[in-house]
Amino acid sequence: ATLAAQGHVVGILDADIHGPNIPKMFGVDWRPLQGGENGIRPIEITSNLRLISMAFVLPNPDTPVVWRGPLKHTAIKQFLGEVDWGNLDYLIVDLPPGTGDESLSVAHLIGQVDGAIIVTTPQDVALLDSRKAVSFSKMLHVPIIGILENMSGLHCPKCNHFIPLFKVGGGEQAANDLEVPFLGRIPIDPDVVQQSDDGVPYVTSRPDTEVSKAFETIAEACEKFLITHAELEASA
Amino acid sequence: ATLAAQGHVVGILDADIHGPNIPKMFGVDWRPLQGGENGIRPIEITSNLRLISMAFVLPNPDTPVVWRGPLKHTAIKQFLGEVDWGNLDYLIVDLPPGTGDESLSVAHLIGQVDGAIIVTTPQDVALLDSRKAVSFSKMLHVPIIGILENMSGLHCPKCNHFIPLFKVGGGEQAANDLEVPFLGRIPIDPDVVQQSDDGVPYVTSRPDTEVSKAFETIAEACEKFLITHAELEASA
Repeated sequence: ATLAAQGHVVGILDADIHGPNIPKMFGVDWRPLQGGENGIRPIEITSNLRLISMAFVLPNPDTPVVWRGPLKHTAIKQFLGEVDWGNLDYLIVDLPPGTGDESLSVAHLIGQVDGAIIVTTPQDVALLDSRKAVSFSKMLHVPIIGILENMSGLHCPKCNHFIPLFKVGGGEQAANDLEVPFLGRIPIDPDVVQQSDDGVPYVTSRPDTEVSKAFETIAEACEKFLITHAELEASA
Repeated sequence: ATLAAQGHVVGILDADIHGPNIPKMFGVDWRPLQGGENGIRPIEITSNLRLISMAFVLPNPDTPVVWRGPLKHTAIKQFLGEVDWGNLDYLIVDLPPGTGDESLSVAHLIGQVDGAIIVTTPQDVALLDSRKAVSFSKMLHVPIIGILENMSGLHCPKCNHFIPLFKVGGGEQAANDLEVPFLGRIPIDPDVVQQSDDGVPYVTSRPDTEVSKAFETIAEACEKFLITHAELEASA
């Protein structure tokens, strides 16, 4: 949403087949997909922000997707190859946690992913998973844009006391240990929860908060990485 | 941990193949598995609490498990069939989110699961997944013990103001909508995060807090469900 607000044409592929929740966060759950001349038309959130998700395929939001890996692979293949994405500046693929079928399918099907962002919360238990995701990306030769520390503490709405709920700094520590870039911290704001439930992108409705500024700084860091990376590729 | 503290013999099967973090929360990461006469010996956390996890199989904690479904199925099959669990009162299987390979494998391999507990956070976006998990359990004829609302608000450690961080009450609402039992709410306590990272079960180290009491009440409700269920089966 931050990149789209800056004028880029952005596609989002919600590759969380079992938990396709991105449409709800954009306020577009329950839209039926339609075919066009060049394939399935993604749902347009704005003129420059397009989305594809399993949520658009399910008969109702309570229907579980009881699929093993091969069917998930087929769905991701269709989302990548049979969707009329148009000319995109960025295609962002949101993956569920873990280093299994969805992640493998995306890496294999795209072939050359420009970069992976690893989102973690700061506590050690969550970092165990993020460290595995870094090793996974390296194994598959996917460049690592960096680690992003989400839910990095909150301020009490009453007394403004800072509460390091899931601790703070673990993401940066892991990035240093594993020698990958650290993209920044996003504090918790209960408004993000509320706005996501209401289907309103927080970064556009509350552009001036600490959290929105954190999103913006991180989006800029990602863009910079990708541009540098593309230039290096072009000159190679 | 609550059931074990009450004297029951409990086995825990960590079926999160890609994110096997339960050993760390019990302070037993990095223990090598050993074979005995009757199969692989689970790691003994206490004399009546036994654990099996992929974490015990990995060469180091940063190693990702880059497996598709069939290999995960084989691992879960071994954890169920080739582990010398001994006489257990309860075998608790911890599943990753989603209604995919791990959940399907456990349901199919055990055949007759006594009951499923669906853990959710209260915001709508998370409830989307929990509602799918309820439908999934019903499809596979797994009795639903109930929905448990985790991370159900916190009190500011400084001014004691109640912060409904991920909202409150969504789990109960979903349970009512879907006509399944509601097991209760577990508030957030930053000490749970810290103690989990330190490998100390919170319910035994801080038995008198609101959070530990919530765990205890929920454990009792689960036990009651299972005993009633077993009696019904026996009389049928």
